[in-house]
Amino acid sequence: MTAGKRIHGEEAIIQQFLAPLAAGYAGAYALKDDCAAITPTPGHDVIVKTDPVAEGVHFHADDPPEDIGWKALAVNVSDLAAKAARPVAYLMALSFPEAPEADWMRRFADGLGDAQRAFGMHLIGGDTDRRPGPVSITITVFGEVPSGRMVQRAAAKPGDRLYVSGALGSAALGLALRRNGAAALLPRWGLDPRAPTAPGDWHAALDAYLRPKPRLALRTALATHARAAMDLSDGLAKDLGRMCKASGCGATVDLARLPMLPVVARAVAAEPALWQAAAASGDDYEVLAAIPPSESAGFEAAAHRDGVPVTHIGDCRDGAGVEFRDASGATVTFASTGWDHF
Amino acid sequence: MTAGKRIHGEEAIIQQFLAPLAAGYAGAYALKDDCAAITPTPGHDVIVKTDPVAEGVHFHADDPPEDIGWKALAVNVSDLAAKAARPVAYLMALSFPEAPEADWMRRFADGLGDAQRAFGMHLIGGDTDRRPGPVSITITVFGEVPSGRMVQRAAAKPGDRLYVSGALGSAALGLALRRNGAAALLPRWGLDPRAPTAPGDWHAALDAYLRPKPRLALRTALATHARAAMDLSDGLAKDLGRMCKASGCGATVDLARLPMLPVVARAVAAEPALWQAAAASGDDYEVLAAIPPSESAGFEAAAHRDGVPVTHIGDCRDGAGVEFRDASGATVTFASTGWDHF
Repeated sequence: MTAGKRIHGEEAIIQQFLAPLAAGYAGAYALKDDCAAITPTPGHDVIVKTDPVAEGVHFHADDPPEDIGWKALAVNVSDLAAKAARPVAYLMALSFPEAPEADWMRRFADGLGDAQRAFGMHLIGGDTDRRPGPVSITITVFGEVPSGRMVQRAAAKPGDRLYVSGALGSAALGLALRRNGAAALLPRWGLDPRAPTAPGDWHAALDAYLRPKPRLALRTALATHARAAMDLSDGLAKDLGRMCKASGCGATVDLARLPMLPVVARAVAAEPALWQAAAASGDDYEVLAAIPPSESAGFEAAAHRDGVPVTHIGDCRDGAGVEFRDASGATVTFASTGWDHF
Repeated sequence: MTAGKRIHGEEAIIQQFLAPLAAGYAGAYALKDDCAAITPTPGHDVIVKTDPVAEGVHFHADDPPEDIGWKALAVNVSDLAAKAARPVAYLMALSFPEAPEADWMRRFADGLGDAQRAFGMHLIGGDTDRRPGPVSITITVFGEVPSGRMVQRAAAKPGDRLYVSGALGSAALGLALRRNGAAALLPRWGLDPRAPTAPGDWHAALDAYLRPKPRLALRTALATHARAAMDLSDGLAKDLGRMCKASGCGATVDLARLPMLPVVARAVAAEPALWQAAAASGDDYEVLAAIPPSESAGFEAAAHRDGVPVTHIGDCRDGAGVEFRDASGATVTFASTGWDHF
């Protein structure tokens, strides 16, 4: 943070910037109690998830504060989306090494406010403290599903079709754009960084990195048709590996089927090492779902009706591990992440 | 942490040390999913609270790891106790600046296990990561109350009687004992640190600091008779001030009524500056409750039946602010905390 007017005291931070985010949710008690109360819809389970983000690890000091606020909530809500849960509320614990700047807090709270309105939820409590180390934001989200109907990670079966929502590798390019700029990157792939349309348009990639959009619209499709699902936070290769391990099966993925933004597809075509940006890099927050073949048409139709692009990228099989195949059928392996190749 | 065998990888930490704490709770999915599911008892609200603790701020690197684990959960459950909520489950986000030592993790998990069994709850999820800064433990607890029946902080009224559970100032002495040792402190107050019985026995004070016991047994008394309640984490003066401000009333407290361990009472008698250890120092995790006069006898009887000592220390009144009076009726003021006087 740069120099500027700083806000001292937990009370001031809560009342000026956070209490407005709790308005309208009775069980938040205007953030004036130690605890909050969630009244679940009868017959529903409360789905919970916590994921801390820290400056220097998950975001950068010079990222726009609005985007830091948005993303801190979005990465947690993405998990709810993959479980077919409806977001309800969240807690937030903030740690600062020094009193935060008023301007930074205002912009951060604005981004959080945008996100909670987009996702349909309220801040209901938390904690703000001072401690050494990086700025850290620990959000815990609460969602609802009909009792016993959370879509699990560990339930995939051999023969299930694997789908992903949206496009892969977008956030990896977005991070590279934040670091190096479009002018340095795009000419490498024969693209004009000032082009307003595909494939040169890179703004969607930057947006995917700064403001990921949890796939909440996929709820009905998942709840009705999915056997297993999880969100992609650490890259397809690693996360699909986790789904397979938890489910006791293997998977085969066809690289040629991976959905990519036009600008990412062009980069990959020009520089084949970048395949791993799409197949193995994190921060995409798309949904990976295992769909029984008999449900496949229904899943696609429901996703289409609700405006979410989904792509069949491969299938679960007996055995263990994840195999990526190229167009010739040969097995391809990836290093752990891809973004450092941009 | 001292040198020793370290555990590398989030997966190893989870499977070796944390998954056993999730055994027996179906909605934890053995910590193999991104989310957990809480199935609320029909007709109940889910009460939530998060409170991060950090090394160097809330605990010390040389505190026994078992006690760090116990206390990290206990300070959150104390809030549930004051709301008359029954503990159900918790999430835990752990951050380490370097891979933790296996021996430290084992002992930490042992302390957490002791605590969750004592409080009747399970670990159901969380996150483990590496980042710069102090070791940090962010626990989010979930409890239940019949819908709409959470005991609030902001509901006290003029005329209500103020009660505290247990004894005050114990943890402040416990911290001083950790820092300076009984042999350095007790002779100042004419006490023999080797005496096995009151008033020389100081072990209960040390225990109050290292292993606070949330007042869960007060649940029925609070649910049936309390108008308002909160737990005492930052000292009576500050926390009662918060209750008064939130409730729109004032309060008067008689110092002579404050309950203290015999060793604390002796210290206070010998060194009057130590009054503020009892009246204004934190970490006691006792319950402060505002009870309408008509409910006072019922509250005392219920607390007694359930084995929790409670003491009537003063009353709410019109106006604002907290007034402490000594035996002569004169007003006494305190600096913000008391423990630095030990």
